Amino acid sequence: MKHKMKSLLIVIAMLASSHALAGNTTNTTIPEGMGVLPTEVPVPANNPMSAAKVELGKKLYFEPALSKSGQFSCNSCHNLGTWGVDNQKFSIGHQWQRGGRNAPTVLNAAFWSKQFWDGRAPLLEDQAKGPPLNPVEMAAGSEAMVVSRLKEAGYTPFFSAVFGEKNALSYNNMAMAIAAFERTLLTPNAAFDKFVRGEGDISAAAKRGMKKAADIGCTSCHAGPLFTNNQFANFAYGTDEGLKSVTKKDADDHVFRVQSWRNVAMTAPYFHDGSAATLADAVRSMARVQLDTTLSNADVSDIVAFLETLTGDAPQVSFPILPRPTGHALDWRD
Amino acid sequence: MKHKMKSLLIVIAMLASSHALAGNTTNTTIPEGMGVLPTEVPVPANNPMSAAKVELGKKLYFEPALSKSGQFSCNSCHNLGTWGVDNQKFSIGHQWQRGGRNAPTVLNAAFWSKQFWDGRAPLLEDQAKGPPLNPVEMAAGSEAMVVSRLKEAGYTPFFSAVFGEKNALSYNNMAMAIAAFERTLLTPNAAFDKFVRGEGDISAAAKRGMKKAADIGCTSCHAGPLFTNNQFANFAYGTDEGLKSVTKKDADDHVFRVQSWRNVAMTAPYFHDGSAATLADAVRSMARVQLDTTLSNADVSDIVAFLETLTGDAPQVSFPILPRPTGHALDWRD
Repeated sequence: MKHKMKSLLIVIAMLASSHALAGNTTNTTIPEGMGVLPTEVPVPANNPMSAAKVELGKKLYFEPALSKSGQFSCNSCHNLGTWGVDNQKFSIGHQWQRGGRNAPTVLNAAFWSKQFWDGRAPLLEDQAKGPPLNPVEMAAGSEAMVVSRLKEAGYTPFFSAVFGEKNALSYNNMAMAIAAFERTLLTPNAAFDKFVRGEGDISAAAKRGMKKAADIGCTSCHAGPLFTNNQFANFAYGTDEGLKSVTKKDADDHVFRVQSWRNVAMTAPYFHDGSAATLADAVRSMARVQLDTTLSNADVSDIVAFLETLTGDAPQVSFPILPRPTGHALDWRD
Repeated sequence: MKHKMKSLLIVIAMLASSHALAGNTTNTTIPEGMGVLPTEVPVPANNPMSAAKVELGKKLYFEPALSKSGQFSCNSCHNLGTWGVDNQKFSIGHQWQRGGRNAPTVLNAAFWSKQFWDGRAPLLEDQAKGPPLNPVEMAAGSEAMVVSRLKEAGYTPFFSAVFGEKNALSYNNMAMAIAAFERTLLTPNAAFDKFVRGEGDISAAAKRGMKKAADIGCTSCHAGPLFTNNQFANFAYGTDEGLKSVTKKDADDHVFRVQSWRNVAMTAPYFHDGSAATLADAVRSMARVQLDTTLSNADVSDIVAFLETLTGDAPQVSFPILPRPTGHALDWRD
């Protein structure tokens, strides 16, 4: 990763992952590495946060002018009302086309060092540039088309206020602002986090599931307070070649990033191809494919109960009013 | 109209439409009938407002589960980020079908006594029941399908809290809650309203346009503080038969409700068929078709300047977090 990150984050993450907590009255040992969701996210040095940038990013996140048809915004598939996903197997895109991979949640995505299922982009800034131009998603056609739309809508003063007067309204700065907004989309205070902080309990089933997940090795990849090690893993499942479809290297065949478990109970269906309809199915398949372990129904149920404790508070945002020209509409296209 | 309405509204509307205001330092006479947007809306006796009902209605307004595909919510076509419209000529619906009439704004719709372009429904409660079942819009198939989805999503406690324990979750109550939310979507403080209240000025062009609109007779239908008399009018324009398509009566041929001018500068394109791309086009055509008047370019420009003063403050809403089942997705269908 070539960008400097706030090292503060790493420290917080490590401090949070202690495993014998005084406040925890249940005397349950929390498996090594597990801990409270960090409160600070890594921020690239070239895209510092500001309130105005976040507010602009929020407008752009909800902006249907990023799509050729004027129908789709980021929020269409990564709906903040439904845990940053659309709960579709594959999202609906331009002219009712379906995408080829399940839309991952935007919540806590600020913590991932690999964006997209195949992890091909390290930063939210990179990710945000993809969907507007993807012909099966927003199909905007070109960066110039998006910039022209935003200019006509009236975004120039908003970009200038954030990025300075000169050439502020650019596709790159659009992505910078969206990424800044996304860095605010965290989900603190999961039942598990409260449990770790000694502020609440989780069920006996969830505790059994927590231990079982660690014992069988799930948490060697779904590691730490984020419940992902932010690394790549081979997932020999389905026909999607994963990272190989980008790099063309055989070594990257069926390689995907390790997904986080945070809020996983709210982001069905599961896997890159959305082929696991339920969380129980996903747990059973992962144990079999990745760990060569056949889980009993009771174990699956316990692990699901634990995963359900990882649902945090969804971020509250005020719905943005978008700039629009007066007296005429933007130029939507089929 | 068979429902009892708060008569308070009428009183406020009348008080607001005075035309020689002490605070108005410009000494401009405001044409008879024009006035400040009322602050209170009519509320049917059988659907009293409450904070919980409004909050539930907001969830439902943003709820894609009302559509068969899980893609469309009320907000998809009546986007609160863009003045309650989608700025499409005809909205995109299920499987990329296009509707047959331009989506009217939901802002201030609480004031209209006729909903839909053809005015076939008097109340927001009636209107809200339409789009989910319309096969070219949300295409949900049946009321039972919608109710079943909402139940599975986890809406039962929200409906019970608002409508009582017994059979609270119904299609009818869904519409009641959505209507209650819509009654909060008002746009006060337009430049014109501030001008009338003596708190600000409008341009000389806008003042000329205000007088011209009254002089040539626009405001005989676009009357009062709402800039609509809430009546039907014959609009001999285009091929759409308007109210006749509902009643089958020849007398209703090309009959539509009179649209309000409130926020009209932000709701392009214009007319029931979206055929007027600009507000200037719409003004010119209306004068010609309805008043047999050919306006000069200067007059059109003045009237447009006046109409632009009718853009109020868009309502600010917090984006709702929607109930969802854990560990599996709702049953979306193509």
